[in-house]
Amino acid sequence: MLQTYPNPLQDNAAYSVVKQYFVDDDDTVPQKIVVHPDSPRGTHFRRAGPRQRVYFESDDVLACIVTCGGLCPGLNTVIREIVCGLSYMYGVKRILGIDGGYRGFYARNTIHLDLKTVNDIHRSGGTILGTSRGGHDTTKIVDSIQDRGINQVYIIGGDGSQKGAAAIFEEIRRRGLKVAVAGIPKTIDNDIPIIDRSFGFDTAVEEAQRAINAAHVEATSFENGIGLVKLMGRYSGFIAMYATLASRDVDCCLIPESPFFLEGQGGLFEFIDKRLKENGHMVIVIAEGAGQDLLAESEEQSTTLKDASGNKLLQDIGLWISQRIKDHFAKKMTLNLKYIDPTYMIRAVPSNASDNVCCTLLAQSAVHGVMAGYNGFTVGLVNGRHTYIPFYRITERQNQVVITDRMWARLLSSTNQPSFMKHEPNHPVGEAGAMKW
Amino acid sequence: MLQTYPNPLQDNAAYSVVKQYFVDDDDTVPQKIVVHPDSPRGTHFRRAGPRQRVYFESDDVLACIVTCGGLCPGLNTVIREIVCGLSYMYGVKRILGIDGGYRGFYARNTIHLDLKTVNDIHRSGGTILGTSRGGHDTTKIVDSIQDRGINQVYIIGGDGSQKGAAAIFEEIRRRGLKVAVAGIPKTIDNDIPIIDRSFGFDTAVEEAQRAINAAHVEATSFENGIGLVKLMGRYSGFIAMYATLASRDVDCCLIPESPFFLEGQGGLFEFIDKRLKENGHMVIVIAEGAGQDLLAESEEQSTTLKDASGNKLLQDIGLWISQRIKDHFAKKMTLNLKYIDPTYMIRAVPSNASDNVCCTLLAQSAVHGVMAGYNGFTVGLVNGRHTYIPFYRITERQNQVVITDRMWARLLSSTNQPSFMKHEPNHPVGEAGAMKW
Amino acid sequence: MLQTYPNPLQDNAAYSVVKQYFVDDDDTVPQKIVVHPDSPRGTHFRRAGPRQRVYFESDDVLACIVTCGGLCPGLNTVIREIVCGLSYMYGVKRILGIDGGYRGFYARNTIHLDLKTVNDIHRSGGTILGTSRGGHDTTKIVDSIQDRGINQVYIIGGDGSQKGAAAIFEEIRRRGLKVAVAGIPKTIDNDIPIIDRSFGFDTAVEEAQRAINAAHVEATSFENGIGLVKLMGRYSGFIAMYATLASRDVDCCLIPESPFFLEGQGGLFEFIDKRLKENGHMVIVIAEGAGQDLLAESEEQSTTLKDASGNKLLQDIGLWISQRIKDHFAKKMTLNLKYIDPTYMIRAVPSNASDNVCCTLLAQSAVHGVMAGYNGFTVGLVNGRHTYIPFYRITERQNQVVITDRMWARLLSSTNQPSFMKHEPNHPVGEAGAMKW
Amino acid sequence: MLQTYPNPLQDNAAYSVVKQYFVDDDDTVPQKIVVHPDSPRGTHFRRAGPRQRVYFESDDVLACIVTCGGLCPGLNTVIREIVCGLSYMYGVKRILGIDGGYRGFYARNTIHLDLKTVNDIHRSGGTILGTSRGGHDTTKIVDSIQDRGINQVYIIGGDGSQKGAAAIFEEIRRRGLKVAVAGIPKTIDNDIPIIDRSFGFDTAVEEAQRAINAAHVEATSFENGIGLVKLMGRYSGFIAMYATLASRDVDCCLIPESPFFLEGQGGLFEFIDKRLKENGHMVIVIAEGAGQDLLAESEEQSTTLKDASGNKLLQDIGLWISQRIKDHFAKKMTLNLKYIDPTYMIRAVPSNASDNVCCTLLAQSAVHGVMAGYNGFTVGLVNGRHTYIPFYRITERQNQVVITDRMWARLLSSTNQPSFMKHEPNHPVGEAGAMKW
Repeated sequence: MLQTYPNPLQDNAAYSVVKQYFVDDDDTVPQKIVVHPDSPRGTHFRRAGPRQRVYFESDDVLACIVTCGGLCPGLNTVIREIVCGLSYMYGVKRILGIDGGYRGFYARNTIHLDLKTVNDIHRSGGTILGTSRGGHDTTKIVDSIQDRGINQVYIIGGDGSQKGAAAIFEEIRRRGLKVAVAGIPKTIDNDIPIIDRSFGFDTAVEEAQRAINAAHVEATSFENGIGLVKLMGRYSGFIAMYATLASRDVDCCLIPESPFFLEGQGGLFEFIDKRLKENGHMVIVIAEGAGQDLLAESEEQSTTLKDASGNKLLQDIGLWISQRIKDHFAKKMTLNLKYIDPTYMIRAVPSNASDNVCCTLLAQSAVHGVMAGYNGFTVGLVNGRHTYIPFYRITERQNQVVITDRMWARLLSSTNQPSFMKHEPNHPVGEAGAMKW
Repeated sequence: MLQTYPNPLQDNAAYSVVKQYFVDDDDTVPQKIVVHPDSPRGTHFRRAGPRQRVYFESDDVLACIVTCGGLCPGLNTVIREIVCGLSYMYGVKRILGIDGGYRGFYARNTIHLDLKTVNDIHRSGGTILGTSRGGHDTTKIVDSIQDRGINQVYIIGGDGSQKGAAAIFEEIRRRGLKVAVAGIPKTIDNDIPIIDRSFGFDTAVEEAQRAINAAHVEATSFENGIGLVKLMGRYSGFIAMYATLASRDVDCCLIPESPFFLEGQGGLFEFIDKRLKENGHMVIVIAEGAGQDLLAESEEQSTTLKDASGNKLLQDIGLWISQRIKDHFAKKMTLNLKYIDPTYMIRAVPSNASDNVCCTLLAQSAVHGVMAGYNGFTVGLVNGRHTYIPFYRITERQNQVVITDRMWARLLSSTNQPSFMKHEPNHPVGEAGAMKW
Repeated sequence: MLQTYPNPLQDNAAYSVVKQYFVDDDDTVPQKIVVHPDSPRGTHFRRAGPRQRVYFESDDVLACIVTCGGLCPGLNTVIREIVCGLSYMYGVKRILGIDGGYRGFYARNTIHLDLKTVNDIHRSGGTILGTSRGGHDTTKIVDSIQDRGINQVYIIGGDGSQKGAAAIFEEIRRRGLKVAVAGIPKTIDNDIPIIDRSFGFDTAVEEAQRAINAAHVEATSFENGIGLVKLMGRYSGFIAMYATLASRDVDCCLIPESPFFLEGQGGLFEFIDKRLKENGHMVIVIAEGAGQDLLAESEEQSTTLKDASGNKLLQDIGLWISQRIKDHFAKKMTLNLKYIDPTYMIRAVPSNASDNVCCTLLAQSAVHGVMAGYNGFTVGLVNGRHTYIPFYRITERQNQVVITDRMWARLLSSTNQPSFMKHEPNHPVGEAGAMKW
Repeated sequence: MLQTYPNPLQDNAAYSVVKQYFVDDDDTVPQKIVVHPDSPRGTHFRRAGPRQRVYFESDDVLACIVTCGGLCPGLNTVIREIVCGLSYMYGVKRILGIDGGYRGFYARNTIHLDLKTVNDIHRSGGTILGTSRGGHDTTKIVDSIQDRGINQVYIIGGDGSQKGAAAIFEEIRRRGLKVAVAGIPKTIDNDIPIIDRSFGFDTAVEEAQRAINAAHVEATSFENGIGLVKLMGRYSGFIAMYATLASRDVDCCLIPESPFFLEGQGGLFEFIDKRLKENGHMVIVIAEGAGQDLLAESEEQSTTLKDASGNKLLQDIGLWISQRIKDHFAKKMTLNLKYIDPTYMIRAVPSNASDNVCCTLLAQSAVHGVMAGYNGFTVGLVNGRHTYIPFYRITERQNQVVITDRMWARLLSSTNQPSFMKHEPNHPVGEAGAMKW
């Protein structure tokens, strides 16, 4: 049996009023809410929160925090709140930041983190720790963890990084180290399954409104004006869908989950033609991962758009489709198409109030879980409650917009766009998305 | 048996891809999520959404919309989306706005509403229909509904207005009229029970950050600087609590649900003294309904602060407590207290993206429910699903912050403020709040 | 002698307190401020403002307003204030909007404008009248003016549109029509000479900060991060220069007036290399017209970047230079270059408070001037005073950043960037710029 | 003759392109621009900028910066740019911040300032140095300057602080110390004479729009809605005037310079009554210093509104006039008056782009002037050029809105408010204001 200690929070005067502050070990949260009276209870996850007893003595803790992958609003808030949570709630004094993502474990010096260092960082976008994408060496990382005596590892990152976290966790377990590994899932695209929403998503949808507003103003100020906005969403179109629903100015929303085609009856060009004739202008929102099949097809046929040193220019669906639209209508009418790519302007903003709360609670949940001795988990909001989810659950598939579900229908009814279906009704569609409104 | 008609949405090409677009009549959503395996299933609400068959023929519909009570971000979006929903989804052409709240039914002309009228209104705060508080005559309202031939009534309003809606619904039923009445609950304070959150709340918390930031800047720029911000929350402190959690700059959050006292050991003055000595500055957030017991007590003892024509000045807890703090410390030190009341600046802003989506879905749910022949209900998000809730459920009590619950503990741990308890542990505390993170 | 009438403003009670409200006909404003005691007095312009006597009877006026060229914050405010000025100050009732720029005079219906129509338009970006670039037929325009009986023409547009205005004015004079033509100079780039600043410029510099902030966050969050922002400025780099001075985060600002080169000693690549080594990150701001010589040279040598149907992709200096930087450093190090083009997001926003005041005063000056019988002029702020400037003065050359002047030196001292001079000191440089701080 | 040194800027490669970078010692800027051909030339001020030779060797400099009085957007930018200017341009390494205003010279420790300390401070409102109002001891300050060996003193403060600076300068001169004293005039109210505008003013006018927008939304959403906004302006109404001109939603603007009365013909109540009857709602902007005569009168007659420990509540013209309006209309109609005081929310924001440029140039001018050996001056923009102005010039009187001048007439014409004159046309009016548009 592992040794445990009383939770230092029990001496905190502030908690004396709180009944049942500590979460029972067998409290769970169901993944699916029972809607039909007779449906089975399904998967449940452990409820997040402080436990009566903790697995670490505060003075023994040497925690580290690493941020991986692309930017997302709220990274600094999560960092700040892990530090604040460890310090204020558990009296932990030794916390390190890993510089520049996973590679920083072995290629860089660590960064000292304390309450003063992190005090104002939530007011800035980005991550004060730096981040990087891609390749890293699990063995070297765990060597570094072992050599430095780190015993708590907080990993803020997306899909790939959570897989990396799982690998690190396996290696730690293999070596029999007393090191806890917790993930805080980061995906501006909201493409991590199971959880209700990921931090930064709300801010991203909010910021996307600026670009859509600009597209709307440009479109309405010129004859046959088209404002085309590319939004984030490599594999799932949540930002595009919610930004469209929030804006009320969008005529057409194109996402990876819903295939479309350009030419002929029922295609995009026909719809553009129709909408311009009706209204004289049009706003199109396209997720970066939409229409990749068209792009791939086009690249095979043509090389003229290619760059000597690569094919970066072609990979941008927004630039590509802008050019295709212009080419198509060139003979018929003078289009005024304005293409806006606000990606970096969206992901670099600080998190809004709603995401700040979200980040804070995720960070606190992670800290409580690690202190309580849970390991190899990621924190997440499931059906409105904070839970601990095993790594494999969130890396085994991606969350996608379900185009046969209610939310996409709401979008279609709000834009009145066609389904762009080629009379082949059985497209593969994703599993039920996380946002269930 | 009532006559019904096929839902016109079934002919909408956009929905052809959507499986199970129509909601089954017996789909429900549980009020409480089953956490312990053996707990009973509890109350369930009817799931919102379009039904296979509708109760109104579109051409027969004469709908009206009324907004009641104080301002809240998103009112115009709800109005817009009821009009858009009725028009686009059901082909309804006759929609009236009631001018200036309930009294407008009989004291004013109606306002014609169509897609063009409402096109841009969601960009502005307030309500284009106007609103009012207080007294109205149910009989005259139902007379007006009957005389004008209105058969759908959409009521956007708070606690009191929903009670009014219930009375109107009763009177309509008594008279045997074929008139549907639906409520869209409006409360910037988030004090309506059962529902997850009310529209406008998220925007309010976001806007409150500006005031807290200003208070923080003022406090840190002067010796013994105190920034005191009063936020909305007559009976429940949700805005104050979430704004505090989102900001990370607040030293003390005072809400109606958590009693406090000023003088002596464990009181507010002692805490202010301590925090100023530690940090040299302090930010206090107070909900407008906090400390009303202290205020009432003070008013009995003193009349000097009263105004000849009333006692308005005294009713502001922010002004009152500012003066008390200044008086208390006047002998000891030079305080620089700055009092900020951002109430009207918060409630008058347009809704943010998140609330825009929220308003849109509430409006669509209301329209689907009314068209399907449901009556005497209010729409609301319960555990992440849209539902239809009987009026009486949401008017029988108020949603409050549960100070023995986890979220308030999180706040205490983030501000490190004392519990202000006078060693009488058994204060009455509200039932479980709606936000369950 | 032309017939004149007493100015209706003299009966306005509000002006009874104002001494010398009416401007003397011979009041002037000097173009250059006398700095050296013995320098000559130089060019003077007529001072703008209401005159004692007016040339039009209010009931006889049929005014029209046209907006031409690209979008600029404040267009709607100028439209609004011309309508308000004519209505409130002079009691003019008949005002038309021309739809979609100059071509709208003969190819479209006019738009009725009154106080109600324009009441809220200043809250939106763009132009409610629509706009267009390029070709128009002066004869047809003047035919339309004559046929419709228009006698006041307000033209809001840039360099090219002011030339068009001059041509229209000449044709009107040639035909001997009693029609007044006034220009309100519109250039987001601030490239119109003589005037202190153009409306919308301040808003553009403000909005540009968002893009620069995002670039800074991206750059600092990644190893060897470069944030590259393209800003407006086809022939003059004022927006880039002021946005750089306002931001304090920019390492290098490239404008059309200051030639630069990429490779070799003293070139851009060398500077990037140096700055990355020093700081690990870098922010570059480039005006759209900068480096066009390099681009032209590059296009001659290479066709690989060209598109079958045109060469749009190549014309973007931002995309081009991003690719060149990436190519250059590809062998040496992993760059993380993020390119941001906020152009449409900047020009589509509503004008800020400062520009709103600016637009209002320009509109009022134009109305006063036209009513007083001045003709063929553009309004503009010269040395802090509103003036009437003959068309030819502002179309004969462009305002440019003077790189041998003090403001550019201030920029260089703030960025510490090299001069990118190739040891040929005598580059042609523009005449003294309008902003003289 | 004092010893001087070559300006280190002459070795800065960046300046090699700049012709005439150094300002001639006898370059001047006229206070008044010559408008009438035969008017005299009037007062001139020394032009700001770097001089060929400097009076300090960089290594000998020990500079200090102090901020005094109330908050104003841009304080941190000025601090930052003095530090950057001294460091980058002149290689100065020793710079101190004085903590908490003038008193900090002798009552507090100094704060070390360098490039790293100040790098991000311009993103925050307030002042990192702290500030205070009121009493200080000139002798002790100069003792501290002497004892610490400080030889450059930069004082950022308003009217009173500039007077304090003048006293410090006199005492330094009396003692024969080689210490330069320069002021950077700070007044959010724009009430410092001679200069074109003060830093922070533009940001304040921009932020004030939020409050006016909220007032407008509240006013239009309720029957007989009045939105009343109090803005800064103790002795001069520039913020109120410009915020009104920028907003276009204000029905009445009340400033200290323009007396008004409440009751009877031509009074405020009559105008409110009229406007409510016409439009159903109304927005009033009142500067904090407006109507002080009415307030004083009212206090004499009545003591009911007084507070036991002082009379704070009464001093707020906004609260007072709100009560008076409510009382007056109480018998006649139900008013919905909403009072908004955004003062602290305005003055605590960071400076906008335009003010950032302004602050930067003021700071650089101050540094150039001090290094060149000028002493006892304040920097300021005069007719669009930076100048050095003797202290006494800017403290001998206050800048005020001239209600007989053109800008106030423009405001009257935009609000259509009455002049509130009691048929006594000869009210004393201020001298010509600084903003001359």
